[in-house]
Amino acid sequence: MARVTLLTDFGTRDGFVGAVRGTLATLAPEVRVEDVSHDLPRGEVSAGVRALARYWRRWPEGTVHLVVVDPGVGTGRRALACASDGRFLVGPDNGVLTPALEVPGARCFRLAEGAASGPVSATFHARDLFAPAAAHLASGRPIEALGEPVPDPVRLERTRAVLGAGGARGEVVGVDRFGNATTDIPGEWAIPGSVVAVAGLRLPVRRTYGDVASGEALALVDSEGWIEVAVRDGSAAEHFEIAIGAPVTLRLD
Amino acid sequence: MARVTLLTDFGTRDGFVGAVRGTLATLAPEVRVEDVSHDLPRGEVSAGVRALARYWRRWPEGTVHLVVVDPGVGTGRRALACASDGRFLVGPDNGVLTPALEVPGARCFRLAEGAASGPVSATFHARDLFAPAAAHLASGRPIEALGEPVPDPVRLERTRAVLGAGGARGEVVGVDRFGNATTDIPGEWAIPGSVVAVAGLRLPVRRTYGDVASGEALALVDSEGWIEVAVRDGSAAEHFEIAIGAPVTLRLD
Amino acid sequence: MARVTLLTDFGTRDGFVGAVRGTLATLAPEVRVEDVSHDLPRGEVSAGVRALARYWRRWPEGTVHLVVVDPGVGTGRRALACASDGRFLVGPDNGVLTPALEVPGARCFRLAEGAASGPVSATFHARDLFAPAAAHLASGRPIEALGEPVPDPVRLERTRAVLGAGGARGEVVGVDRFGNATTDIPGEWAIPGSVVAVAGLRLPVRRTYGDVASGEALALVDSEGWIEVAVRDGSAAEHFEIAIGAPVTLRLD
Repeated sequence: MARVTLLTDFGTRDGFVGAVRGTLATLAPEVRVEDVSHDLPRGEVSAGVRALARYWRRWPEGTVHLVVVDPGVGTGRRALACASDGRFLVGPDNGVLTPALEVPGARCFRLAEGAASGPVSATFHARDLFAPAAAHLASGRPIEALGEPVPDPVRLERTRAVLGAGGARGEVVGVDRFGNATTDIPGEWAIPGSVVAVAGLRLPVRRTYGDVASGEALALVDSEGWIEVAVRDGSAAEHFEIAIGAPVTLRLD
Repeated sequence: MARVTLLTDFGTRDGFVGAVRGTLATLAPEVRVEDVSHDLPRGEVSAGVRALARYWRRWPEGTVHLVVVDPGVGTGRRALACASDGRFLVGPDNGVLTPALEVPGARCFRLAEGAASGPVSATFHARDLFAPAAAHLASGRPIEALGEPVPDPVRLERTRAVLGAGGARGEVVGVDRFGNATTDIPGEWAIPGSVVAVAGLRLPVRRTYGDVASGEALALVDSEGWIEVAVRDGSAAEHFEIAIGAPVTLRLD
Repeated sequence: MARVTLLTDFGTRDGFVGAVRGTLATLAPEVRVEDVSHDLPRGEVSAGVRALARYWRRWPEGTVHLVVVDPGVGTGRRALACASDGRFLVGPDNGVLTPALEVPGARCFRLAEGAASGPVSATFHARDLFAPAAAHLASGRPIEALGEPVPDPVRLERTRAVLGAGGARGEVVGVDRFGNATTDIPGEWAIPGSVVAVAGLRLPVRRTYGDVASGEALALVDSEGWIEVAVRDGSAAEHFEIAIGAPVTLRLD
């Protein structure tokens, strides 16, 4: 059974999500529609990227991920449908689909406005262009029918930690609801005795929160495999004023 | 397959929505239940009206829209089930169903407390009265069985722009999450060269956000067909302190 | 048809919920997954208890309630699957499942990490341990297969009102989104003429909000059967600065 997941910055209270879900229900009545979030910060494409990275590959093959953080709606930015690792993704060509585009073999197509089933408003592509494309894909119809191939979809540059003499230099790339700060340093680079330096702190890399006392800071490998800075039962971001972009060093000596 | 959509001001964290969904799952196990929003401002019936207007007709015929913004629960206000344009609506008789009631042929019935399957609490009609009625309708049973006809359901008066010599006078009727201000002026009234005057600004009517530079204000026709005031990549409501009720003029000369 | 409900303090914007739903969709494709809330206050186990109490028994038998408020993830706290009154519950052994554990005949089992289908991260048990257990149960497989019995699951002590000469002494145990303050005094203790004393007020016990004028305070029996203090069209918690723990007396004379 096919599924469409929804990730947007629409909030829910204006009824925009209701209009998108209604369109999907009308065009593809059998398809299941599941919310991931409508609570992304308005217009923050990078927040969409971080969320998408956490879930898109966890879903069964054939799932269609609709992702709309689209400050450029109504400009010349392209609208995309992509296939990657057996899943589909639909959204604006502004980099928000980056996690799926980095996988070898990913293919994208430009949604043609003329192919939509009805009129396309200039400001609500989620309803008039993206939802119809998602319904098309979830119904098992071919992605090639949606438009011309796009060989160069926009990808958001991600920072990458650098491995040098004695350690790695990276940075904080995200802060989650619990105040945990994720970095761009792969957890597999840590070895026994590794220490993380951030915001003037030196934190040994532990296995889990329970390895320190309540209220203490630690570094650990997060559930996606990256070095994370956390405070047990607290918020590292608040306690240490760590924000996105803060430099982080993993010392191996 | 029948569907029930949910629009409330309950929030989710108290478990009220869980109780409503559980009741629906018990009474109509095959029916799909889909969230529109539980984040409406508490008790603001007009916010429910604006959201409902955006989505109720986008859903397939047979869909049941459960709408509960109900500051009068536990007073003498009536409880309604209505049929309009092939869809059903269930909620309090306080005007929140107005968008569907304005359609010719809409019919309403008063939910009888005695018809509910169990005891009806005085303060949680969503669970004890509205959800059972929604389950009844989504299961394909007749709306007439729910209670006596109501010939005069409450409708919220909506403001209407006035067309006069040289232009139209209307007002802001809603502000969405992006700070776009919707008006009661029909977009079809705009002609080439039309200018919108609001908050001391004079804004040409453009086709879409991309027609002005980032940070600039514009007027355009929104995705529902109304004149809207917006700031590209910004919030018109914040920039110009435009609130609901602000006067708006569309000049045609 | 089996269902899994979700109650967490994850928020939605980080993509954690997307990962949990994706895992469920992969392991149990036919099962329906329904959100109760992801908006619980971070780490507040008692808020999870109050929400769960409102809905868990409203769902059909066989429903699996996944409840994750888990400040102790990655410590030695146990992970549980429980059966109670025909429903299943999965979550951490920190008391959050208390409403179901209080029912005679409730049985719990300790989730063995080795029984999960893949690697178990130290910090995301919702995805790696709880969701697979929920998928197992929703697919109709036996709870006993998930691990060893746990005879002593953690229960949160709940306060209980005391009935004495002339009345009952209890306290506020929760405040909902509308500012209504729920107490631990059973509504059935109230008799005609009962008066509730709280925050210096003396409030007759009424049947419903409509029995007082707008803006006035009242006491009534809430939809779960407990004495509640409310303000019609207002917030009792804000008006009277009533918080959890505030003493409440029900006078019967």
